[in-house]
Amino acid sequence: VNVTPEVLARASLMRASEPGDPHIGEAVLLHGPVDVLDAIKVGRSPLPKAERYRSRLSGREVERDIERAVAQGIRFSWPGQAEWLPRLADLGSHAPIGLWLRGPLDLAQVCDRSVAVVGSRSATAYGQHVASEIAAGVAERRWAVVSGGAYGIDVAAHRGALAVHGATVAVLACGVDVDYPRGHNTLFNRISQEGLIVSELPPGEHPTRARFLQRNRVIAALTRGTLVVEAGFRSGALNTLAHAEQLMRPVLGVPGPVTSPMSAGVHEKVREGRALLVTDSDEVLEALSPMGEGLTHVGWGEQRMFDMLDDIDQQVFEALSVRLPREAAVVARRAGIPAVEVAARLSGLELLGRVRRTETGWLAVPE
Amino acid sequence: VNVTPEVLARASLMRASEPGDPHIGEAVLLHGPVDVLDAIKVGRSPLPKAERYRSRLSGREVERDIERAVAQGIRFSWPGQAEWLPRLADLGSHAPIGLWLRGPLDLAQVCDRSVAVVGSRSATAYGQHVASEIAAGVAERRWAVVSGGAYGIDVAAHRGALAVHGATVAVLACGVDVDYPRGHNTLFNRISQEGLIVSELPPGEHPTRARFLQRNRVIAALTRGTLVVEAGFRSGALNTLAHAEQLMRPVLGVPGPVTSPMSAGVHEKVREGRALLVTDSDEVLEALSPMGEGLTHVGWGEQRMFDMLDDIDQQVFEALSVRLPREAAVVARRAGIPAVEVAARLSGLELLGRVRRTETGWLAVPE
Repeated sequence: VNVTPEVLARASLMRASEPGDPHIGEAVLLHGPVDVLDAIKVGRSPLPKAERYRSRLSGREVERDIERAVAQGIRFSWPGQAEWLPRLADLGSHAPIGLWLRGPLDLAQVCDRSVAVVGSRSATAYGQHVASEIAAGVAERRWAVVSGGAYGIDVAAHRGALAVHGATVAVLACGVDVDYPRGHNTLFNRISQEGLIVSELPPGEHPTRARFLQRNRVIAALTRGTLVVEAGFRSGALNTLAHAEQLMRPVLGVPGPVTSPMSAGVHEKVREGRALLVTDSDEVLEALSPMGEGLTHVGWGEQRMFDMLDDIDQQVFEALSVRLPREAAVVARRAGIPAVEVAARLSGLELLGRVRRTETGWLAVPE
Repeated sequence: VNVTPEVLARASLMRASEPGDPHIGEAVLLHGPVDVLDAIKVGRSPLPKAERYRSRLSGREVERDIERAVAQGIRFSWPGQAEWLPRLADLGSHAPIGLWLRGPLDLAQVCDRSVAVVGSRSATAYGQHVASEIAAGVAERRWAVVSGGAYGIDVAAHRGALAVHGATVAVLACGVDVDYPRGHNTLFNRISQEGLIVSELPPGEHPTRARFLQRNRVIAALTRGTLVVEAGFRSGALNTLAHAEQLMRPVLGVPGPVTSPMSAGVHEKVREGRALLVTDSDEVLEALSPMGEGLTHVGWGEQRMFDMLDDIDQQVFEALSVRLPREAAVVARRAGIPAVEVAARLSGLELLGRVRRTETGWLAVPE
């Protein structure tokens, strides 16, 4: 990156303030980052916390910080820069004034068709399974899965996308070079090699509670909609939904057993009419696809017609009967293919009209 | 029952025709049952299937049938009779022209506050558990649980109500003296002793597919709303929902795992906005309570204040901590009380503000 005065000013202001600071955001929109930074540095800024900003910059060599980050493969993007996602401007004065990026994917390209998949850190096995399945399903259709890199639903979503070699974006509440949680360092390594890690925090910074909450607004703003897979009452995951609602982006929720407290928050949102109930990746894409592509099932059906008529589909199809319905698990056993794969294939074959779902299992449809 | 000409005519027409026959229904509304029957008997009826009706009556001594039924404790009710439920007239020409009843409860009284609980015959353990819990919950608040006496969700709902000595009504597609399915003869015995068995079919009649479908309209029409607990795509249980919709009665659905085909039909209805998602008996009653009693939670909370502060509540309460959330199963173990009971008690205590639900379990609320 060429450290122009604008880049230096934006990166400095991000050092000086906390993510989502509306005073900094508004000032930058009105006066540009260079003037705002200069006023702070010379003690003439009218902003309420100007002295605090200045003290956080004293002794810092932000230019050297940037050069060091770039040497580690970290890059910086900002409004107007090639990779920047214009959609972020929907946050108004709360929009990030820059983003640190790590990984091969282009921010604007990958987020163009993306869905946030969020949920509880203490997710159940069911929630993690469904998060992975849906993430894999949308990723197979070239939609990116954006999440927060946390335990539970987040990691299940990232892994689901990675499992099908799809695109995934982790938005962190710490520096893009910080492994938090530490147990996810392998995950972050893989995402930095195949996906994209995004943060407003400068490299090296650690997360705080406030940073998690502000991070959620970035997840909501980067994506076309937010899907919550499991969330208890008052779960932090519901915070991301609130941001999506404010941005007027669709909010989707996966139901679960009513006996599971982990689904109670999702059920509440659906009951209130604030989230659309979805049960699979087809329904997610149907809800989020841009206007004019409303006939998702038909459209994708046609596309998959060519993508999918491969050996595995054939094996799945041959493991079915035209008369005796078989459960997906039985089909998986007969075909010798993992159940996760079989479920995805059956959905695809269903779109093509080659198989049919009945109350007791799947049937092959004779041609 | 006093076998008046009207009773004899209605019972005869029910022998002559199949349930829900709109020609018979409309003719009875216009001309009264005695004239309609006389015209059929003398071969002057203008109805399209008049000859068929007549042939089904030939050689029948309906009066003797009625006397025999009454001797077995079976009674007959019809529009205008003391026990008749006026709400059934909402079915118009499809309304039953009479009903056979067996059991101590009064049809009109028991159905005044009633909910239909329906679902798949091949329900999962989860579905049966939730059906029982919700049935017990509504029955504890003196709402009757109406269902069809079938395997799966039906029997779970009836048993849930019976378990708390609540009111339950089985609406059959065969005579009220016929045990179908045979495996449910104990259930039917108990309902005939504590609840109510209802049918349009004369005693001794056996079910047919058409009779099951017509029976569903009676279930929908007897109740204030219909709850579906589990139903696959194209499940017969959804037929009852269609009747409830036509009657403009609320349709409610319990979500479940998206991995369960048994919940797929319910999820579809919720997605289409044709069913309200509910997760417990409080939410069912909130949706179905008559206007002016909208504050279900508060109202019932007050009533329960006196009903419920018993030893079991105390034990459940003492098994909780004010700091460490405990799952209901853990509470059940600590209190030595069955989990089903604990769940019901926790709901009650929650209404009283004595306990609080958190993402990871239940907390006691200090006074």
